[in-house]
Amino acid sequence: MSKRIGSRTVALPAQPGVIAWASVAGQKEKDGPYGDRFDQVIPDELNGENSFEAAERSMLETAVKLCAGKAGCTLHDVQMLLAGDLLNQIISAGFAARNLQIPFYGLYGACSTMSESLSLGGMLADGGFADRLICATCSHFCTAERQYRAPLELGNQRTPTAQWTVTGAGAVMLSGGPAKRRARVVLTHTTCGRVIDLGITDQNNMGAAMAPAAADTITAHMQDMGRSAADYDLVITGDLGRLGRDLLLELLTQKGIDAPEERFFDCGCEIFSPRQDTHAGGSGCGCAASMLCAHILPELAAGRLRRVLFMATGALLSPTTTMQGESIPGVAHAVVLEHREAEEG
Amino acid sequence: MSKRIGSRTVALPAQPGVIAWASVAGQKEKDGPYGDRFDQVIPDELNGENSFEAAERSMLETAVKLCAGKAGCTLHDVQMLLAGDLLNQIISAGFAARNLQIPFYGLYGACSTMSESLSLGGMLADGGFADRLICATCSHFCTAERQYRAPLELGNQRTPTAQWTVTGAGAVMLSGGPAKRRARVVLTHTTCGRVIDLGITDQNNMGAAMAPAAADTITAHMQDMGRSAADYDLVITGDLGRLGRDLLLELLTQKGIDAPEERFFDCGCEIFSPRQDTHAGGSGCGCAASMLCAHILPELAAGRLRRVLFMATGALLSPTTTMQGESIPGVAHAVVLEHREAEEG
Repeated sequence: MSKRIGSRTVALPAQPGVIAWASVAGQKEKDGPYGDRFDQVIPDELNGENSFEAAERSMLETAVKLCAGKAGCTLHDVQMLLAGDLLNQIISAGFAARNLQIPFYGLYGACSTMSESLSLGGMLADGGFADRLICATCSHFCTAERQYRAPLELGNQRTPTAQWTVTGAGAVMLSGGPAKRRARVVLTHTTCGRVIDLGITDQNNMGAAMAPAAADTITAHMQDMGRSAADYDLVITGDLGRLGRDLLLELLTQKGIDAPEERFFDCGCEIFSPRQDTHAGGSGCGCAASMLCAHILPELAAGRLRRVLFMATGALLSPTTTMQGESIPGVAHAVVLEHREAEEG
Repeated sequence: MSKRIGSRTVALPAQPGVIAWASVAGQKEKDGPYGDRFDQVIPDELNGENSFEAAERSMLETAVKLCAGKAGCTLHDVQMLLAGDLLNQIISAGFAARNLQIPFYGLYGACSTMSESLSLGGMLADGGFADRLICATCSHFCTAERQYRAPLELGNQRTPTAQWTVTGAGAVMLSGGPAKRRARVVLTHTTCGRVIDLGITDQNNMGAAMAPAAADTITAHMQDMGRSAADYDLVITGDLGRLGRDLLLELLTQKGIDAPEERFFDCGCEIFSPRQDTHAGGSGCGCAASMLCAHILPELAAGRLRRVLFMATGALLSPTTTMQGESIPGVAHAVVLEHREAEEG
């Protein structure tokens, strides 16, 4: 039986439960407005490892282990890990999966990875293919700068449109099995993103590269569902930053989609305070992932948020294609997360 | 209702149909033993583009378009594209998805991508989340050598254990909807791979890096299903090459799994003839993908093969981790493909 709604959305009628989550963050993130909500904070950029890359994957491993622990199960009980990251060959996720020994589907969606993994994971849990699976991602300021822009040692000046890659990780356990009964948060729908490219070529303006994809997915979602922003407590984007968020609201208004500013919450705009000098805000897979696990899921579980559209946004930036004169496409996947009341008894 | 079987395998009770497939290959592949079976062959390494990278993505786009055409539908009718490739930021799949405008989930599984996409796509089709979706991947000798080893212009000598990255692409359309009725090939089960690393550090010996993951997945699959190699016409691996294939048979025998040599078919050993001087054989995402679409699926559709275990194998090789002294982990996902008789009427 088809679960499709409209052109791009699918329903998850079994309503997979979000049964546990965990976040890990760096010192700069600890100093931000949500600093006291992360489950664990690493002491410095290396976290006791020999390289920034090893430090990044250690955060992902920790987040997955904490998440399994909160769900009261062992890593062996987790049937699938859907994860990816920003690094070439997704080495953070791949090496973490080697150490964790959870059966592993590797994803690449740049900064959209948290909602890509929830979108796929939600369908797999809904379809009865996993009783317990974990969706996870991470990023690290030092590894991302080195790979995508310039080594930190150069001390390059950052442009006003630049964003600061979040050092952080998030892991979310979904259940389509008996364990979902005690979940206070459920996944009800997901909308798959298309790759959209309006011709942005400035690799220091990721917000502008991602906003068109975000607008495209929100538009498809609202049309498919017959809903508007008023049906959500918050429409949450991953890391558009201040510039990208403004562009998103403008693009939605152009498309005739209701976009009341107070309902749009961008993790990139929120994770750092303006005094932290990150320019346009936070970015990276770990931005949406750590904010989801540190702030959004707890608010949903407590019932202070009742229904949100969560959509991490990815810029498919590549040094290779940029050097070859290509522009920067973006992609965004959306999932609907809802509070569910505890059952009687 | 759980569809899980044993520790790592899931059943696809709706038996999604493989309703169309297409392959594109390069000139060297055309000169191999299966050269006359590819749907399209590109005239040279650039295929009319300005870079090898653009040529690679053009092959993927062509494969997807040919596949949709064979299924008698437009790109607009395809609800999801699950694709990835070997290049950093999966630029081949990402830019192809931009041009094709099919909603897109990006994957990274190195050379395991064809079976990773079929594994995930099979579950999504089985669960009713897509009436039509395409699983696809590609690789290109010139882009892979440049990124993973050394620029071709250096003219480096290749070691005896080295494999030759296939220039090719494959696209497979799955249906969980009404279109599946006319399928002569169906997906019945899938087994998710774990990341396995026995400490291989030689980046010119990918077969040895992948064989342990292949052995791990085959072992899990046979134990979960209560089957042996005798239950399959062929156990097909992606690109272990001559050395990796020998190691796989040895590892399986050590684990007590029946491994009769004649039932094990490695696409990397078959795609080139020994006179083509590729040393240990073919490799790359496009190796398993193009052989699946040019040879294996047609044989299944015709009933000359009745049931195969198809398992592309990936080495999670990364220049970054290799330079940091890490070994090379591998991963392999398996899907069961079966012939189905035409229905009466």
